[in-house]
Parts: sequence; structure tokens; C-alpha cells
Amino acid sequence: MNVTVRGRPQPFRTVSFDAGKNSVRLVEQRLLPHEFKIIGTKNFRETARAITDMVVRGAGAIGATAAYGLAQGALAFRGNDLKKFSAHVAIVYQTLAEARPTAVDPVNAMQDVRREMARGETVAQQQSLALAAAEEFANEDVRHCEAIGRHGAKLIRDGMRILTHCNAGWLAFVDVGSATAPLYAAQRQAKKFHVFCDETRPRSQGATLTAWELAQQNISHQIIADNAAGHLMQRGEIDLVIVGSDRTLGRTGEVANKIGTYTKAVLAARHRIPFYVAIPLSTIDWKLKRGFDIPIEERHAHEVLGAWGMISNPKSETRNPKSARRVYVRVANPASGARNPGFDVTPPDLITGLITPAGILKPNEIWKRRKELGCAG
Amino acid sequence: MNVTVRGRPQPFRTVSFDAGKNSVRLVEQRLLPHEFKIIGTKNFRETARAITDMVVRGAGAIGATAAYGLAQGALAFRGNDLKKFSAHVAIVYQTLAEARPTAVDPVNAMQDVRREMARGETVAQQQSLALAAAEEFANEDVRHCEAIGRHGAKLIRDGMRILTHCNAGWLAFVDVGSATAPLYAAQRQAKKFHVFCDETRPRSQGATLTAWELAQQNISHQIIADNAAGHLMQRGEIDLVIVGSDRTLGRTGEVANKIGTYTKAVLAARHRIPFYVAIPLSTIDWKLKRGFDIPIEERHAHEVLGAWGMISNPKSETRNPKSARRVYVRVANPASGARNPGFDVTPPDLITGLITPAGILKPNEIWKRRKELGCAG
Repeated sequence: MNVTVRGRPQPFRTVSFDAGKNSVRLVEQRLLPHEFKIIGTKNFRETARAITDMVVRGAGAIGATAAYGLAQGALAFRGNDLKKFSAHVAIVYQTLAEARPTAVDPVNAMQDVRREMARGETVAQQQSLALAAAEEFANEDVRHCEAIGRHGAKLIRDGMRILTHCNAGWLAFVDVGSATAPLYAAQRQAKKFHVFCDETRPRSQGATLTAWELAQQNISHQIIADNAAGHLMQRGEIDLVIVGSDRTLGRTGEVANKIGTYTKAVLAARHRIPFYVAIPLSTIDWKLKRGFDIPIEERHAHEVLGAWGMISNPKSETRNPKSARRVYVRVANPASGARNPGFDVTPPDLITGLITPAGILKPNEIWKRRKELGCAG
Repeated sequence: MNVTVRGRPQPFRTVSFDAGKNSVRLVEQRLLPHEFKIIGTKNFRETARAITDMVVRGAGAIGATAAYGLAQGALAFRGNDLKKFSAHVAIVYQTLAEARPTAVDPVNAMQDVRREMARGETVAQQQSLALAAAEEFANEDVRHCEAIGRHGAKLIRDGMRILTHCNAGWLAFVDVGSATAPLYAAQRQAKKFHVFCDETRPRSQGATLTAWELAQQNISHQIIADNAAGHLMQRGEIDLVIVGSDRTLGRTGEVANKIGTYTKAVLAARHRIPFYVAIPLSTIDWKLKRGFDIPIEERHAHEVLGAWGMISNPKSETRNPKSARRVYVRVANPASGARNPGFDVTPPDLITGLITPAGILKPNEIWKRRKELGCAG
């Protein structure tokens, strides 16, 4: 997508590879929305640390980062000894796999790369195949997101007001994003629409990341408190909801996504507003039988008890120059604790359709078409 | 209610009068939850300013503050000239009425006081009647809240987990509160229960005021993001919802309350969880015919785009000593705007019952029993 650097919009991918420097290029996402900075990792260990420290986050983005990181590690090897090379690659793989142990995307991505590498007969061949496979993984992520955009854009008509939740945008993928892909595609078709971004407490990814993305692309949008969507729906001010998915059950069509997604689905059903979920194929879980069994991560209370931001004058757009970096402020009563479930599960009866790279499907069609959607089992 | 001052719980009213100093005593609510400070206004102009500046907020609390402020102004008059006294009182009345022009409670309260004063034949008699009427107004507010507590406590059984939204607590009234009154009454009956406080973005009154109140009374509670209640309901972790009301339509039973209330009502209905609204009689609007016609205040965008708090170390309970006062931090993308409706309207089909000082009623019973509930028309 385009990012405005020094006043000029430039095409940009969230994750890319600089072959000359043997470096993975990433957006330092922890500085957004206040600062846009690109970093280049010097070696695979730095790449792993960028995943651990959440410099980069989002399923597609960390998958591509790990794929490139594996290629980066392989390319750094000097010599022709294939046995030593394989031992080195195993360390690289292990380091990157442990960077975020609960995430499946880095491991899946690296398995793709390793499978391709195995076709090479020399170190040099394997190195070059590793990079080609990583590039192919990143390109496929982009093609899938673009396909989601192409199908999803058909849902968007001129004048629509569309609700989003959290950030399933291009910052979470290699490019384009999942839930945002239909917006970008519709914009290219010159459709006019307006987006309401749920701020998405407690981590505020809607207010920070999605709003920043939409601003970069000049898409008309406003941030709302998570409390406000019900009222806007009641007053007829929302026509369509599109959200992302962290995990979609292939057997049931249930969707686990950022906390608050379920609430928006319940509200949309009451107001008969179409509720769509954009799902990259990598999020489909073909094994689990019941959404109730999806483990819901309980995150640290401090996320609910406070907020991160830049010290500012509330009534002006101008930042207070005293605040050069983000600070954490405790908002809540200091003597009170919090519950902080990170995700919730939306049942299929509340989902109008799932926007997949293969087209828009009803939740119960996923299992029927599992072969086509890449189910190995 | 009890407030812990220097380690000892002490009984306390949100608004009271110090006759010796001719001063209205108020909690400086803008400092909560980080500091508990009582202020005394020197004269009626300071009292009006405390209303304007939101040192004191909440329907019952600003009503009592205006009633006491009128008595304070009357008592400051020196002399016996009834005509000059009446002119002086008119200025006091006008000043307090203009302190928060859209609020009806200060005006209603002062009309009560003036009616009583008119029975006096001398300045001294009128002064003393003014104070007695203000005290009676405050006492009646407390009696009404206690009656809500008595009726509402019957809904609470041992082991229940109760959801609240925003702050309809004793800080918003003279004492006890409306939505919190059943909690305090149930606690006195030695019932054991747990409260989930919606943080209530964008102004976070649940995380700041309600959580502070409950902590003072040692009531088991946790703050949750507004996004989390749907998930907790789905997992069977919420048994009862009690919220307050800013305006209740006597003709329809519709309830206008803090933004997000409607969402909780929709979620509760889906999960068949009882949803109750505590309504002090002063909030009933006997004239308006449709909830849709209730004007919904659009508040300033900076509330949604950021948050107020004390600079802290996120992972510890200890505040950073650098932060002696609250700061505003901009959380959202600086180039993005916001919509910020302050209230929403909950229709009667989502309301299990209205907890009034006269008992628990179905929404459609309010109009039938309007005489008993104080409808003048």
C-alpha cells in the first residue's frame, strides 16, 4: 500500500527483503501511529527478536518475517559443506520458531521454505531456493489478500458506512490486509464510502493501526468508542461490518477474533446489518470441533487499567513537545484489578458470510469445500 | 457511604452543608480515583462554579448542590429588608441555574427550596426555611436511593456475578447511588457477590469512579474492557446486569443512559440475563413520546482519541513519582477524527425491570402508575 514519506505517497510492503544487505525490512509497528519507521534486521537473531518484541505482529506478517528470516540465516552461511549448512539452518529454524511459541504462522511459513530448499543439491542452490521460497510465501500472502479484496469489494456500494474492529489491515500481513482488503479494492474502483473504526480497547489497534492505515490511503473514516457502534446501528448509520479472524474452525464456521468481535456480531444481527469475516486460509483450523474449546488467552490486567499514548493538549491537534515518546498512564482506580480476555468466539448463525481468497462462503460451506481451501486431512 | 481516610473508613455524603462556615462540602471528583479530596465552597458563586467545572456531577448530586447553594446564598444576606433579600435570592437562583444550563436537576431542586422559603414572613424565617428545604431535598434523594437499594437487593443472590456500566453510584447522588444501591444493600445483608465494572470508554467512569466506590466498600470487583462483557456472558460468567438512567420516558419505558448501555441490553437479551435499570424518580420524563426524539449529545472527539491518567509503570502497582497529576495522552492516530455520541437509548423490550423507589416495575407499568410516581400532568 502507499505510505506518505516526507509528504509523498510511496508503495510499500509491511515485510520485505533487502538481498544486497541480507536484511529483513520491517515497519517498527510499536511506534505507530505516532511515527513511521522502517528497520532492517542485521541477522536472523535480530529478525527473531523483532517477532518476539512485536516490532512486527499479525498472522501473515510474522509468517513472512520468519520465512525471510530463515532465508537470511541460510544466506549468511559461508562455505560448501552441506552437512554443516543443514546444522546451521536447523539452528536458524529453531531460533525463529521459538520467537513467538504459540503462533502457527512462522512455523508453517518456514516449513514451506524448508521443503523448497530440500530440492537443492548444493549449499548455493539451497540458499537461492530459500530466498525464492520466502519471496513466494510473501507473494502468495499478497495474492490471497488481494483475492479477499476482489471478492469483498462486491459487498461495498457507494455511500455505505462500514464498521471495522481491531486491525486486520496491511500492517498485519505482507500487504493489503484481510478485513481492509475489500476497502482498498473498492477505493480503486472509485467507490465512495465511510469507515467507522472501533477503537478496540484495551490495546486500541483500531484507533492506532487501522485509523493510521486508512489515513495513509485517504479513506474517509472516524474512530468510535467500542460502546458507540450499537447506537450508530440503531440510528441506521452503519450498513456493513467487516472484521478479520485469528482462527476459523473449518468444521463449524466459528470465528475467534479480537475481544469485542462477538458483541458487534450480536448487534449486527439485531439490526439485520450484514456481518462478514475476512479469512486468510492460514487461519483455518481444520481439527478443532467446538469453538468453546478454543483457548482464550487472558492477558495482563494493565492493558485494561490504562492506556499508552503521547502527552498532548486534549483540545488541540498539536502534540505537547515535552512528550517525545509514548507513555503508559494508569486510568483506573489504583486499588482495582481487571479481567482481560484477549479474544472471543462468534458463532456461525451471526455470520452473513466468510470472505475467503476462493470467494464468499456461508460458514457451513467451509467444511464442504475443504479440499479446495487447502485442508490436508 | 464509607470512605477510607488515613486508613479508617468514615461515613460520608457526596454533598453536605457546613452551617458554621456557610459552606457546601463536595468531593473534588475530578481528582478521583487517584486522590480523595473534600472541598468547601466559600459562597454561592463558588458553588455554581463547582457545578460548571464538574467538581460535582450526577443528577442527584448537582440537584442537592444547587439546593444547598441557594440556601448558602440566602444565608449570606445581611439585613431585614425582605424586598432586597428577594432580589438577592433571584440573583443567586439565576447564577446557579446557569451553572449547567441543560441539566434539569438544579432547577427542580431550587424550585422546591424557593417554594418552602415563600412560607416565611421575615428574612430570618426565609433563610432558615431555605436551609431546611435544602436539607430535606438531600435527605429525600438519600431515601429514594435507599428504597431503590431495598427493592434491588432482592434480585441479588449469593454467588452472583453482576455487570455495571458507567457510574450511577453514590458519587452521582447525595449518597448510596442508584444502580449501586442494590449492591450496597445486598452487602449489608451479608450476601456474597462479584461485580464486573465496564470501564465505560470514552470517559472511563466505570474504571475510575465505580471501581473506586466499590473498593472503598470492600466489594469484590474487577474492571473489564467494554468489549469483554459479551464474551463473559457467552461463557456464563454474568448473572445480572444493573445500570442507571439519565432519562426514562414515562410514556414508553425507554431509557437514555451512557453510551454502551444499549449494547449491554442487547447482549443480555441474547443470553437471557436479567437486565435492570435503576431509576430515581427525578430522571423520568413524562412529556416526550419517543426515545428517538431524545437529543443525543455529540461530545468532543478528544475523549475518544485519548485518555487521562497518571504516568505509571504498566507492570507494577506503584505509580511513577514523576507524575504528580493526571495527564492527557493521545492514543489514536493524530490525523484521524472521531464520532462521540454521549448516550444511547434502550427500548423497553430489552429491559427486564425498572428499579424505582416505589418498587420494581415493568417498563410499561410506569405510565399506568404515573400519579404514584410523581407525574404532575
